[in-house]
Amino acid sequence: MPASTAPRRATALARRPAMIVESPANERVRAARKLARRRERARRGVFLVEGPEVLTEALDHLVEVFVAVDAPPAARAVAEAAEARGARRTEVAAAVLDALATTVTPQGVVGVAALDEPPGDEALATASLAVLCCGVADPGNAGALIRSADAAGADVVLLSAGSVDARNPKAVRASAGSLFHLPVVEGVDPRETLAAARARGLATLGLDAGGTLAHSEADLAAPSLLVLGAEAHGLPSEVAAGCDALVRVPMPGAARPGWRGRAESLNLAATAAVVLLEAARQRGAR
Amino acid sequence: MPASTAPRRATALARRPAMIVESPANERVRAARKLARRRERARRGVFLVEGPEVLTEALDHLVEVFVAVDAPPAARAVAEAAEARGARRTEVAAAVLDALATTVTPQGVVGVAALDEPPGDEALATASLAVLCCGVADPGNAGALIRSADAAGADVVLLSAGSVDARNPKAVRASAGSLFHLPVVEGVDPRETLAAARARGLATLGLDAGGTLAHSEADLAAPSLLVLGAEAHGLPSEVAAGCDALVRVPMPGAARPGWRGRAESLNLAATAAVVLLEAARQRGAR
Repeated sequence: MPASTAPRRATALARRPAMIVESPANERVRAARKLARRRERARRGVFLVEGPEVLTEALDHLVEVFVAVDAPPAARAVAEAAEARGARRTEVAAAVLDALATTVTPQGVVGVAALDEPPGDEALATASLAVLCCGVADPGNAGALIRSADAAGADVVLLSAGSVDARNPKAVRASAGSLFHLPVVEGVDPRETLAAARARGLATLGLDAGGTLAHSEADLAAPSLLVLGAEAHGLPSEVAAGCDALVRVPMPGAARPGWRGRAESLNLAATAAVVLLEAARQRGAR
Repeated sequence: MPASTAPRRATALARRPAMIVESPANERVRAARKLARRRERARRGVFLVEGPEVLTEALDHLVEVFVAVDAPPAARAVAEAAEARGARRTEVAAAVLDALATTVTPQGVVGVAALDEPPGDEALATASLAVLCCGVADPGNAGALIRSADAAGADVVLLSAGSVDARNPKAVRASAGSLFHLPVVEGVDPRETLAAARARGLATLGLDAGGTLAHSEADLAAPSLLVLGAEAHGLPSEVAAGCDALVRVPMPGAARPGWRGRAESLNLAATAAVVLLEAARQRGAR
């Protein structure tokens, strides 16, 4: 483009509609797409957020937002709200938005967010209800766990090294924005976390199908760290050994003839929800 | 192949190792792959089951099993157990198994199962705890819901017309085999189901964020039909109006400043787990 047209172009950019990015090869689009990779997220300290509902929860943390030309009103509104708070807004063709999205239904808008991770010790220092998950592998489970912790009023979620990245796009989506509501600390060492929690006066309660205490009999109103294992293997034995008590969710279904002795009969995120909301109940939630 | 070699070939097939299918274009493999489509499942009355854990729960219902030549011992064992119960076993190349699998980790074995769907009325007739879900869209949620219902000792799960297919491979996988433990009735009409439940003496309890009763205050020990809405929209208003009472799960997190007024703060499957296991608790599960 000749230099003489530059001022006119700048004026056009200041008005609606903005210039529309038509190619997925666009530099900013390519940079955003790379955030599907964990290493790239870690290196740049930003991650993808998809869909208007989650973006609404992320508004204070967005640095960039891509909105499709055919986006529905809710997507357009959140993109404009993000821009008003300082995020860079880029209008893109529908196909470019599809290329940006990692989930099936981005609903017209994808953002890039920056969210500082708090030090785990600091988050535990004032916690009354905390969750430690050792090795969660499925991003949907990680997100649902964070969402349930948020709903139950937990103060912090800690994920062990080896867990899926909470900033994985599917985890962000499954958290339904809860990732932006409470501190989520990643890469922790479970034994160090148990020791730190105990030093802060929290009871450390491991969730285990063979636990001696039913969840409704455990004192979850007292300051507590709830400790969960991974999907496939449950609570690691060395972590279980380091807990003050092991808690189970009693399951009448396990007495059925059809039940072939599966160790873990509830999904990880379901177990977390049941125990977290039981804690909320014991704490007087109404 | 000349007719004269047929007897020798039959003898070879009777011994290990069986003939190995190397091509995804093999007729039986192609027929199984088509089961990724709902219409094909409905037409043929069979569906895919993936991974040794779920196959173990499905043993009595398998008509066919495909096992990879490089399958781990658990996969090989379940394939042999299936064959011993009458399923047709086919050894396939690793790439063929990958082509058959719809989930990322089939772990060496994929089966085809037949499972009759019981009439909803019959299943409700003797139910003490039943779940009706109106419009669940995500197969992972549907599977997790069925798994939690099973764990809680529920007698039947009913899915409204418009819900995802419980025999969707991802739903089957997420159910962790629970699909084979309790009757799952699909395509029901919610209002007819409410009427049938009431006629059978079940209280109809709608799960709703604005419900008047906390789940721990509702009498879930009494014979009950728990009624859930879909992920995005919650309980349809005409269904809510037809329930005896609306029940909420109290969520202290909703009082946070960061909370922007989301209608549904727990994932659908998490809500189901919390209320189902509360019912189990009230019914004396230990």
